Amino acid sequence: MKSLDDLFLHFLQDIYYAERQLLKALPKMAKNAQEAALKDAFTVHRDETVEQIERLEQVFEYLGKRPKGVPCGAIKGLIEETEEVLADSDVGAVRDAGLVACGQAVEHYEMARYGALIAWAHAGGHTGVVSLLQQTLDEEKKADKLLNDLAVKHINSSAAALAKAA
Amino acid sequence: MKSLDDLFLHFLQDIYYAERQLLKALPKMAKNAQEAALKDAFTVHRDETVEQIERLEQVFEYLGKRPKGVPCGAIKGLIEETEEVLADSDVGAVRDAGLVACGQAVEHYEMARYGALIAWAHAGGHTGVVSLLQQTLDEEKKADKLLNDLAVKHINSSAAALAKAA
Repeated sequence: MKSLDDLFLHFLQDIYYAERQLLKALPKMAKNAQEAALKDAFTVHRDETVEQIERLEQVFEYLGKRPKGVPCGAIKGLIEETEEVLADSDVGAVRDAGLVACGQAVEHYEMARYGALIAWAHAGGHTGVVSLLQQTLDEEKKADKLLNDLAVKHINSSAAALAKAA
Repeated sequence: MKSLDDLFLHFLQDIYYAERQLLKALPKMAKNAQEAALKDAFTVHRDETVEQIERLEQVFEYLGKRPKGVPCGAIKGLIEETEEVLADSDVGAVRDAGLVACGQAVEHYEMARYGALIAWAHAGGHTGVVSLLQQTLDEEKKADKLLNDLAVKHINSSAAALAKAA
């Protein structure tokens, strides 16, 4: 990586890989959530992810590159943690609280990646792709906020009440 | 994980492991940064990490548990990505821009974790540990903002200028 453009391309390939992994992980998260609103949140975000992947393909096209992912250890680790929560919990509010936390960690990872790509697009003069990346960043922030609201308003207190009832 | 407390303990062990891995990674990031302000940012954050680990140990103590980490795939992946940037770049502004992005991804991961722990501490009635966790969350946010400011003000444009000069 000798230039900012090399770095941009590498991290673009990294998030392209990550989004495609998420496309497979989100339906599993939706399926295993108990709370209807949480199922919906994961399902809606799965559909957004399809569009986010298409936007990334438009960025590749802008750069004159073929869309390609590079394996990304971070997303693998984040999905692995989600699998652990599913393996170690039963259906219910505690699992839901864990799924929210895993989902928020993924959203935060994506926010960091899109934030860097946007800053580099500005610095490198690729202003033509800024709005595509910004649109996705806004969706990731919204998804994070929705998960947070579900946890704070409902899921965490239900999980805490379970312990008191036990 | 049958209760919110089980979930809290698991994620506490996860972030304890992560912080201890970071304690080893941050000096390497500081050493390989070119820009003095970036070196400083990583070094200062390494020192903060020492205190953050101590705070986590206080949370374990509050819970009556021995401090213990559980391997965390996400932080392993995030550190792996930092190693890749170092392996694939030479000393200079492009590497610095990559290190900033890796550092911000780590900060975002930590923000998500501490955010969840704080919400669960509130819901579970462990208000005694909220301020300890909040103090660390505030530091992670500050560290992320500092990295962002360094990139936007200086590092990214230096990296972009390199390409134009080449």
